[in-house]
Amino acid sequence: MRIYGDKRSGNCYKLQLLLALLGKGCEWIDIDIMKGESRTPEFIEKSANGKIPVLELDDGRILSESNAIMHYLAAGTPLIPTSPFDFAQLLQWQFFEQYSHEPYIAVARYINIYLGMPASRIQEFEAKQAGGYKALEVMEQQLSTSPFLIANTITLADISLFAYTHVAHEGGFDLSAYPAIRNWIGLIKEQKGFVAMQA
Amino acid sequence: MRIYGDKRSGNCYKLQLLLALLGKGCEWIDIDIMKGESRTPEFIEKSANGKIPVLELDDGRILSESNAIMHYLAAGTPLIPTSPFDFAQLLQWQFFEQYSHEPYIAVARYINIYLGMPASRIQEFEAKQAGGYKALEVMEQQLSTSPFLIANTITLADISLFAYTHVAHEGGFDLSAYPAIRNWIGLIKEQKGFVAMQA
Repeated sequence: MRIYGDKRSGNCYKLQLLLALLGKGCEWIDIDIMKGESRTPEFIEKSANGKIPVLELDDGRILSESNAIMHYLAAGTPLIPTSPFDFAQLLQWQFFEQYSHEPYIAVARYINIYLGMPASRIQEFEAKQAGGYKALEVMEQQLSTSPFLIANTITLADISLFAYTHVAHEGGFDLSAYPAIRNWIGLIKEQKGFVAMQA
Repeated sequence: MRIYGDKRSGNCYKLQLLLALLGKGCEWIDIDIMKGESRTPEFIEKSANGKIPVLELDDGRILSESNAIMHYLAAGTPLIPTSPFDFAQLLQWQFFEQYSHEPYIAVARYINIYLGMPASRIQEFEAKQAGGYKALEVMEQQLSTSPFLIANTITLADISLFAYTHVAHEGGFDLSAYPAIRNWIGLIKEQKGFVAMQA
């Protein structure tokens, strides 16, 4: 089993953090998205959508989509709640992450950190701010009522949303008005096995 | 249990189609997004992200995100594969739908059908075409090798992707070069209990 990924990508870091919290290892093959390595014919043949991370099983089967790979890697562990409602809430937060959080916070960070804020993308960077802050508001509201996104225990939902939230400042987002999010970031960093994102 | 939704929305139609295929009913409360009914203080209090559909349980608990609600409604049925890999593939397709399909195909349809293609949005409509066709290519590739997205049986993945794919022409997408997708659309329409999307 091996993962193809770029360690600076939050979507890939989700898998690194998950594996670390589970105390599991996995072969890692670096893919540099800035060099177009996720768009080569060889990579597209593995995964038609040309996105990382990708999990390749020993028999050659392929899984893409970071949040889906997390479910495969964590199947049967306490990071996945078993009650139908809590499980659906876990998925709710992961779909929220991909639709309402990542396209704003991660893309703003990408323009700033990966691309070095070129003049041609400043308008887009600024347009990402409102959506990113809206996503942070939704998280703050939940985390004001419970320490983790789903009640009192860390789940995949927290790992998925931690990935880009804890580096939101790199996308221009100021977390000082979000005390519950900052407290939650601290709780996740205290988890046994925690590993930091590669700078 | 009741669903708040707009029947012209593909994300809401997913739930209508799922319930029909399951032979289940559910109270439905119409929310007109064009009148801002998903942005009222009362609605935001139910669901902080202000999006439809939303499922409200009889005890008042709330679930949002169409694909997450589907898992709650279909728990324990054959529409959800039980093998860990097939289940992760189901999630892969649903995350693909929300990140790589809906933001192009559904948004182009929204600009054309809901907004009537205002001059101010034509550039955005045109910019959605490339991403939408890329998503269709990924689907076509899979559906050229299996009748449904995951092997030989309909799952939630097919329902999630059917919602906006079968009305992709309303977003300006021509399916004539995608025979496997057109065959798959036909197979879904033949399923027992199938209901059409409200025009």
